[in-house]
Amino acid sequence: MSSTPQPRPGGRTARNRAQVLAAVSAELAENGYDALTVDAVAARSGVHRTTVYRRWRDVGGLLTDLLDSTSDDDWQPADTGSLRGDLTALNQEIQTSLTEHPSIATALIAASFRSEEAARALRRLWEDRYERCGIVVDRAVQRGELEAGTDARALLIAATAPLYHQLVLLGTPPDPELPAQAAGTAALAAAAGAFARGSGQVEGE
Amino acid sequence: MSSTPQPRPGGRTARNRAQVLAAVSAELAENGYDALTVDAVAARSGVHRTTVYRRWRDVGGLLTDLLDSTSDDDWQPADTGSLRGDLTALNQEIQTSLTEHPSIATALIAASFRSEEAARALRRLWEDRYERCGIVVDRAVQRGELEAGTDARALLIAATAPLYHQLVLLGTPPDPELPAQAAGTAALAAAAGAFARGSGQVEGE
Repeated sequence: MSSTPQPRPGGRTARNRAQVLAAVSAELAENGYDALTVDAVAARSGVHRTTVYRRWRDVGGLLTDLLDSTSDDDWQPADTGSLRGDLTALNQEIQTSLTEHPSIATALIAASFRSEEAARALRRLWEDRYERCGIVVDRAVQRGELEAGTDARALLIAATAPLYHQLVLLGTPPDPELPAQAAGTAALAAAAGAFARGSGQVEGE
Repeated sequence: MSSTPQPRPGGRTARNRAQVLAAVSAELAENGYDALTVDAVAARSGVHRTTVYRRWRDVGGLLTDLLDSTSDDDWQPADTGSLRGDLTALNQEIQTSLTEHPSIATALIAASFRSEEAARALRRLWEDRYERCGIVVDRAVQRGELEAGTDARALLIAATAPLYHQLVLLGTPPDPELPAQAAGTAALAAAAGAFARGSGQVEGE
């Protein structure tokens, strides 16, 4: 519509997004959700305020895009050769992300209690991670460690939930044994058939 | 110091506290932490504003007292005759408290991300519950279901964490099978020795 030259869509758009999302992470980690504003993000990013408002609209839009961008990466769970080892490696990554200073992960969880948009984006991110971690269970089945038909999502939640509970909800100081302990518990329960579908439980239609 | 007659300490003080804490619960559940103010609590409680400010000072003081009052009750875990049954009953109570509308428990967890005082009070409440639930593990040891020296706190966190994770953090709709499923998983792991102190792990000094 205007006669001013349009920016080439690839380069500047992607660069703007990277700068804005880096600024969201930094603001969130340093000052928390309460202090997060579109203006502060724009100022820190070096991207024009008008551009940031037009593309991301508000704090909810910024958080959603930050979380969605995390799903764009090529993260895969480690392949250590055993179910217990794979779950321990996963838990070590989670423990690091929840205890580093500043912790973006903890800030995003806190934000999810105040923004329905952030809560939905966080949920999508977690479900994406459970899907990617399905291979951990597939490999365990192939090695004969688990029965086919093991409920991967329930197993992954059992393995990882104690870390979120202790580090985020209870605020317990990080324990170097916790990742392996929670992983070992879930692996023992899995080997005992705790997540076998159809054994003792009727599957949903 | 003043010549006005002092209220008898027992009756009115206790009655004021009950009215104020009921008002905090109601405000929190209906409007959330963000809308919680001392003035709104005072108005709803029928207790004089000046009294509420003098005794509870601010929102942090109100939340702390609400949580501490929960530890004053005589709650005990159900005795169902098996470890799996006791943990399932506990999880059913937790699932109810997290999914009822309005849910004070969920509002308090949300508040703990914004108020360090609320976070500390919530932590005290949880630790109090883990202590009271120690008897569940003691009974299982007496019945011969578990080895003596089982780490009760780790077992209780493993049994209950998936409920907080699914219902509070992931926002998964309540699943009537979840309390028994999470309890069964922890009971299987416990029977397999997952929480035995000293087996494979060196106890702290």
